[in-house]
Amino acid sequence: MSQMTLVIGNQNYSSWSLRPWLAMKQFGLQFNTIRIPLYSPESSSKIRQYSPSGKVPVLLHDTQTVWDSLAICEYLAETFPHLYWWPEDKNTRAYARCISAEMHSGFQNLRQNMPMNCRAKYPGKGLALGVQQDIDRITSIWRESRQMFGNDGDMLFGKFTIADAFFAPVVLRFVIYDVQLDAVSRDYVAAILALPTMQEWIKAAETETEVMSQYEF
Amino acid sequence: MSQMTLVIGNQNYSSWSLRPWLAMKQFGLQFNTIRIPLYSPESSSKIRQYSPSGKVPVLLHDTQTVWDSLAICEYLAETFPHLYWWPEDKNTRAYARCISAEMHSGFQNLRQNMPMNCRAKYPGKGLALGVQQDIDRITSIWRESRQMFGNDGDMLFGKFTIADAFFAPVVLRFVIYDVQLDAVSRDYVAAILALPTMQEWIKAAETETEVMSQYEF
Ligand SMILES: N[C@@H](CCC(=O)N[C@@H](CS)C(=O)NCC(=O)O)C(=O)O
Ligand SMILES: N[C@@H](CCC(=O)N[C@@H](CS)C(=O)NCC(=O)O)C(=O)O
Repeated sequence: MSQMTLVIGNQNYSSWSLRPWLAMKQFGLQFNTIRIPLYSPESSSKIRQYSPSGKVPVLLHDTQTVWDSLAICEYLAETFPHLYWWPEDKNTRAYARCISAEMHSGFQNLRQNMPMNCRAKYPGKGLALGVQQDIDRITSIWRESRQMFGNDGDMLFGKFTIADAFFAPVVLRFVIYDVQLDAVSRDYVAAILALPTMQEWIKAAETETEVMSQYEF
Repeated sequence: MSQMTLVIGNQNYSSWSLRPWLAMKQFGLQFNTIRIPLYSPESSSKIRQYSPSGKVPVLLHDTQTVWDSLAICEYLAETFPHLYWWPEDKNTRAYARCISAEMHSGFQNLRQNMPMNCRAKYPGKGLALGVQQDIDRITSIWRESRQMFGNDGDMLFGKFTIADAFFAPVVLRFVIYDVQLDAVSRDYVAAILALPTMQEWIKAAETETEVMSQYEF
């Protein structure tokens, strides 16, 4: 059997690491995890042992190194094609890729001002310039996706796909910062939080002891 | 025959628009272009007529709307599978997706401090904090890719792929800001600039008259 290892950052803080980790757990893949705490003096050299980009997450699969959350997910989708990584219908899959790519390269205001910090509760904080606009766009994506494609389940496309993995860190941010949401978005937040895999991630985050002051208010 | 339209921004400034445009031209696809000048009072409402994210590029294909440069390229790769969008070998394709995704979500320092402005020459400008690090990472990607996969041509994977489309705007930035490069990177810059499709883009950019002061030094 082939070996898979996912190199991740602190589970409390590393939103990028959560994405492929969650997808791999949801699809029942067996893998080892190497956790490298971020932004300590040794972080960079430790990450560079595995990742040419100097960033986590990184997937190690036999002799192949795959970095970047989105490229990892596409690689897994090609490697395990019998699993439901993307919606089956070609046009629906295009839509799922659009919203995942939009998340992958966008929403800088939200990311910078509402950093992920699973342990924390910062109600009302982080609403800097442009953040509400990011929130509005994200919830409009959720509403549209749920309405058009969400009939047979409570994920964005009914069943869990890579798109849900991409929005899972935002779900945590909305909870941490107690962001006001419409009913559809509240239901979606609840559905993501209810996933046993998400609970497993959050529990692990809570046992971590590193404190990164730039992500604390 | 099905209709394809690519909605783009100013060719002088819109680095994201260049990516799918270049790929579509390189693969000989027939398509119309709608050009929307960015950051004018009407830009946002005009873009929103086509794009739910409020950003360009957007591909309109029959009844399907596909936004975000990377999702557009993946959609085209699925729609025209006989063309060489990604390298054929699965592991090489994974590598190509890694570097394209790294470009898609990273290199903020370079992007912010060396904006694309095809008409301009700003030698030595833009070298703010963190920019040289981005440049070093990009040229190390180019060297590695050319060395490992570039034997049968002068693109990153020999023949032109989506990865080249993703790095083409950086090539222009390196020329505009006259960035000091190693020999392999200089050859790659020359090869991208020599593409007739790139010359077509640059000529179109030179005929544009809008001036966006935030992208001029
Ligand atoms: N585009 C990358 C982004 C990865 C990223 O930014 N990771 C952060 C942690 S969440 C990191 O490794 N930072 C370490 C550093 O920049 O030194 C992806 O999608 O995986
Ligand atoms: N992630 C998007 C980014 C697109 C993007 O940022 N486009 C810019 C122009 S290059 C834009 O439309 N800006 C208009 C605005 O933000 O109002 C992609 O890859 O297509």
